[in-house]
Amino acid sequence: MTTELDVLALGNAIVDVIARAEEDFLHAQGVAKGSMTLIDEAQAEKLYAAMGPATIISGGSAANTVVGTASFGGKCAFVGRVKADAVGDVFAHDIVKSGVAFGTPAAIDGPATARSFILVTPDGERTMNTYLGACQNLSEADIDPATVAKAKVTYLEGYLWDPPHAKAAFRKAAEIAHGAGREVALTLSDSFCVDRYRGEFRDLIKSGTVDLVFANEHELKALYETADFDTALEALRGEAKRAAVTRSEKGAVIIEGKVTVPVPACPIESLVDATGAGDAYAAGFLFGYTNGMGYEKAGRLGALAASHVIQKIGARPARPLKELAQENGLM
Amino acid sequence: MTTELDVLALGNAIVDVIARAEEDFLHAQGVAKGSMTLIDEAQAEKLYAAMGPATIISGGSAANTVVGTASFGGKCAFVGRVKADAVGDVFAHDIVKSGVAFGTPAAIDGPATARSFILVTPDGERTMNTYLGACQNLSEADIDPATVAKAKVTYLEGYLWDPPHAKAAFRKAAEIAHGAGREVALTLSDSFCVDRYRGEFRDLIKSGTVDLVFANEHELKALYETADFDTALEALRGEAKRAAVTRSEKGAVIIEGKVTVPVPACPIESLVDATGAGDAYAAGFLFGYTNGMGYEKAGRLGALAASHVIQKIGARPARPLKELAQENGLM
Repeated sequence: MTTELDVLALGNAIVDVIARAEEDFLHAQGVAKGSMTLIDEAQAEKLYAAMGPATIISGGSAANTVVGTASFGGKCAFVGRVKADAVGDVFAHDIVKSGVAFGTPAAIDGPATARSFILVTPDGERTMNTYLGACQNLSEADIDPATVAKAKVTYLEGYLWDPPHAKAAFRKAAEIAHGAGREVALTLSDSFCVDRYRGEFRDLIKSGTVDLVFANEHELKALYETADFDTALEALRGEAKRAAVTRSEKGAVIIEGKVTVPVPACPIESLVDATGAGDAYAAGFLFGYTNGMGYEKAGRLGALAASHVIQKIGARPARPLKELAQENGLM
Repeated sequence: MTTELDVLALGNAIVDVIARAEEDFLHAQGVAKGSMTLIDEAQAEKLYAAMGPATIISGGSAANTVVGTASFGGKCAFVGRVKADAVGDVFAHDIVKSGVAFGTPAAIDGPATARSFILVTPDGERTMNTYLGACQNLSEADIDPATVAKAKVTYLEGYLWDPPHAKAAFRKAAEIAHGAGREVALTLSDSFCVDRYRGEFRDLIKSGTVDLVFANEHELKALYETADFDTALEALRGEAKRAAVTRSEKGAVIIEGKVTVPVPACPIESLVDATGAGDAYAAGFLFGYTNGMGYEKAGRLGALAASHVIQKIGARPARPLKELAQENGLM
């Protein structure tokens, strides 16, 4: 490929196994509602045997985002590791057929393709239990410098701090991107992830390794260890070049230096499954941002994409987001 | 188990792979919109490689029905054949966790678990391409007489005429049911299936091998080779003990001798995916029928279940149908 890319995403390649669950079931399984807990293969089998009938849809946070950006019409690629098994075939099929270039070779041996067992409570909140499997073998060697150099934004998920070698891949990609005059974006992933890697995430932001930070309210408060949103936002403003911070139904704020751009959330009829709300927001924002649409419009595209994915099961769009944006007068 | 069952279903054990598709794609693949086409493994691989990103959810017509009846609170069991592979594990997990007893052993070798590649066009219509795989090995030996004898209704799908030995299993189950003073129900499955087995289906109805027939308008017209609904309905009235005939948004009619009970459809907000509409109708009707609720109420439960499943992706309920029925004052 010689064409310029809008977004190259680097993340965990995961297939979601999504089931409804009552809050009592979460308690019985000992998982904290709204969290992402890492589990091993034995725990994964036990949980699957206990949970209800499921819907299986490709997922992975950064993968969801780049699929969303492609659904708006963006040119995108993804780097992530699956195994050559039935679940890996599903992941690869879905991302490629979503119009995202995906060339990371599947592992022939080692752990199985990653699965996230997602429990959706009646209030629409999702609680994730992730078996990382083959993602644990993502490494620096998977980063192709030419691909990174041609992407306007290289998008990295905080969850990459969990597998042992992905962090090195992350740093290598960021270095190549900046060397080519490109930008690097980071999502903080979730508040539990921030708790695990707070210091390193703040270093990435303060050192300028990332140019654009995505966070939700909970992640931001966790990052600066405060219960006060405004305090956390001002702390981020002082450290980050620019950031988009989402607050569910309260909308989002985009900040850059002294500039603050508030963007309202899109109204929804009913919250079915919150899985992928943040991923979809980043998808829309990145499409607008990499196509020079300005912060307000980029934020509106993000809000629109988020409102779409939370009104159905699964994190990925059920129809082309470009069509949805056109119907809403945004494209 | 010694408890009486409401419904025992016998059918093809299939996992659905569902993707959006434009009508042009159907033309390019040479499949007739709205049909169920049987494909072999090579065709399945080719179609999967061509179709878009998919959602994977357990399916199978009779399996969907019995999961739906169980979701209303009915006591149900299912007989059908999977292979001991990843897809077979998904089918078994989902039906068991839906509260349906499922004891047919998975095949250790032979063809893979069945998959139906379902293309949903923007109008919500579904076109199915089914690889029968392991279903082809369902046979008489899989019928447990004691289980059949304790089921108020043994429910059989017309699609069982497709695999080579399932027909014998069907006949054996019907014989045991009648020997135990129980009833047998048949769904005509789809109009293409009726075209393949018209004579045999009419014999099953006329001979009294089935006590209750489920059909939609298209299947009924195909059965009696007429374009006129009333002509077909009167022909069925003359041959069947009783029947429930669905007509999409026009509602359904239940007939028994000279009695005709019309039941309106439930209004819907938007048709997302018609997959499983007929299966869900049969689920609700059978729950009401086996619990002595009368034709009108049984028909209303059927209409409610159908309206629920067509407003989302996949054929199975996304929430307990009992709750939905309670909210609508039907239970």
